[in-house]
Amino acid sequence: MNVIEIADAADARLADYLRLRDVNLRRSLEAEHGLFMAEGEKVVRRALHAGYRPRSVLLTERRRDLLSDLAGDLAAVPVYVVPEAVAERLVGFDLHRGVLGSFHRTPLPDLDTVLAGARRVVVLEDIVDHTNVGAIFRSAAGLGIDAVVLAPRCADPLYRRAVRVSMGAVFTLPYTRLTDWYGGLSTLRDLGFRLLALTPAPGSVPLADALAGAGPGDRHALLLGTEGEGLSARWLDQADARVRVPMADRDVDSLNVTAAAAIACYELVRSG
Amino acid sequence: MNVIEIADAADARLADYLRLRDVNLRRSLEAEHGLFMAEGEKVVRRALHAGYRPRSVLLTERRRDLLSDLAGDLAAVPVYVVPEAVAERLVGFDLHRGVLGSFHRTPLPDLDTVLAGARRVVVLEDIVDHTNVGAIFRSAAGLGIDAVVLAPRCADPLYRRAVRVSMGAVFTLPYTRLTDWYGGLSTLRDLGFRLLALTPAPGSVPLADALAGAGPGDRHALLLGTEGEGLSARWLDQADARVRVPMADRDVDSLNVTAAAAIACYELVRSG
Repeated sequence: MNVIEIADAADARLADYLRLRDVNLRRSLEAEHGLFMAEGEKVVRRALHAGYRPRSVLLTERRRDLLSDLAGDLAAVPVYVVPEAVAERLVGFDLHRGVLGSFHRTPLPDLDTVLAGARRVVVLEDIVDHTNVGAIFRSAAGLGIDAVVLAPRCADPLYRRAVRVSMGAVFTLPYTRLTDWYGGLSTLRDLGFRLLALTPAPGSVPLADALAGAGPGDRHALLLGTEGEGLSARWLDQADARVRVPMADRDVDSLNVTAAAAIACYELVRSG
Repeated sequence: MNVIEIADAADARLADYLRLRDVNLRRSLEAEHGLFMAEGEKVVRRALHAGYRPRSVLLTERRRDLLSDLAGDLAAVPVYVVPEAVAERLVGFDLHRGVLGSFHRTPLPDLDTVLAGARRVVVLEDIVDHTNVGAIFRSAAGLGIDAVVLAPRCADPLYRRAVRVSMGAVFTLPYTRLTDWYGGLSTLRDLGFRLLALTPAPGSVPLADALAGAGPGDRHALLLGTEGEGLSARWLDQADARVRVPMADRDVDSLNVTAAAAIACYELVRSG
């Protein structure tokens, strides 16, 4: 491995790893260089395993041997080893996981490619919280959803926190992003997907009822709206059915979006 | 209302609200005074509505009228109004929600009381993250679980973050804590509960299969283990069945504990 020891947090070679909690800086830096950040041993290994091409890896001194079995995969890139204190100054917090990987993004596939052969997909309208996006990917991948489609303003699945919370599911579950919010759902309908809008509002039917009688050739798209406000009126109108997770009457008016998503994915795979 | 304007973050009357992110300080302070903290308008209202007795309320100047309709409920306690900057110095972060309530804890009910009439309960072994405890309470309450039982070392549902993430579900869903980890489950079994241990380990059966044939008089207790490690060998051995949420084979080895809990509660209410 091309191990390079660096003792200065201001060293330009470490620029990919600068101030990981500064959301604005990271957004522009990652867009400009077409990179994303993988954090923690398991997630770095999964990014490599999924075929993402590394730009570099950063290890703290205590964890310098963490990836020594990956010398082959990492032969072409610098492996920076820095003291713990330097890592903390560089990234802006205690890097107790001890490893970060900077990876090249790849172009998103087009919608037809992502949907080819997919029977059960999740469509995220404007989930703005990276933690929620990551959690939904993890559940969707784990439960057997085939693909995820993002509205134009949904948060980035390859943002560091989303990647970490997803435990790398963002690498394996195919996804893409709509360029057109207003008309974007029509492509799904044209491909035969039945659009199920998840909403706790009155007039929705229990998801299991909406799926009763579904056959093995049916295609379903589960639409999930933003935290708090839920789906837009436009997307609710475009849906073929409004569905809900049945709630008990106990002063709790709704589920967290990640809990609702997990249950809805489970029910979709079970009976859809 | 007994409105008291205070401009000094060091004023002793504000001691209940000191350094809300200092976990060690808060644990001892809240235990010593038998208090808990409710954060945000909705959660403060729900604590009052659930019958918890307030010690005081703190409002920032911009939000001073937020609870003015509650003059009756708050007649007996001081309502502190402080400038935004004082609130930030006091609690240790930007109090953008603008309202905090300090409430008296009440003694936990005993296990028999909590389980009387309950058919579906969730038992948390050692969930250590307050966010996870709060999320599980919110899902359990929303989906219709009757009660929650905590192992001795499970995180406190009345800790501020747990309260907030639960959206107040910790006030309405009956719960108590076992004093005996080793033998604690025997009480549940003696009361006729069938103990279902949720675990992704080999040998577990899909939860829906384990519940097939359940009758309306059956009692079920769903055992959830700690983040990462899962249930202890002791509790797995004590269970009547080991159950799992069926997973797709997509490099995702497990669900987040809150997602797994949501799905398991949903399935338990649907078919248990």
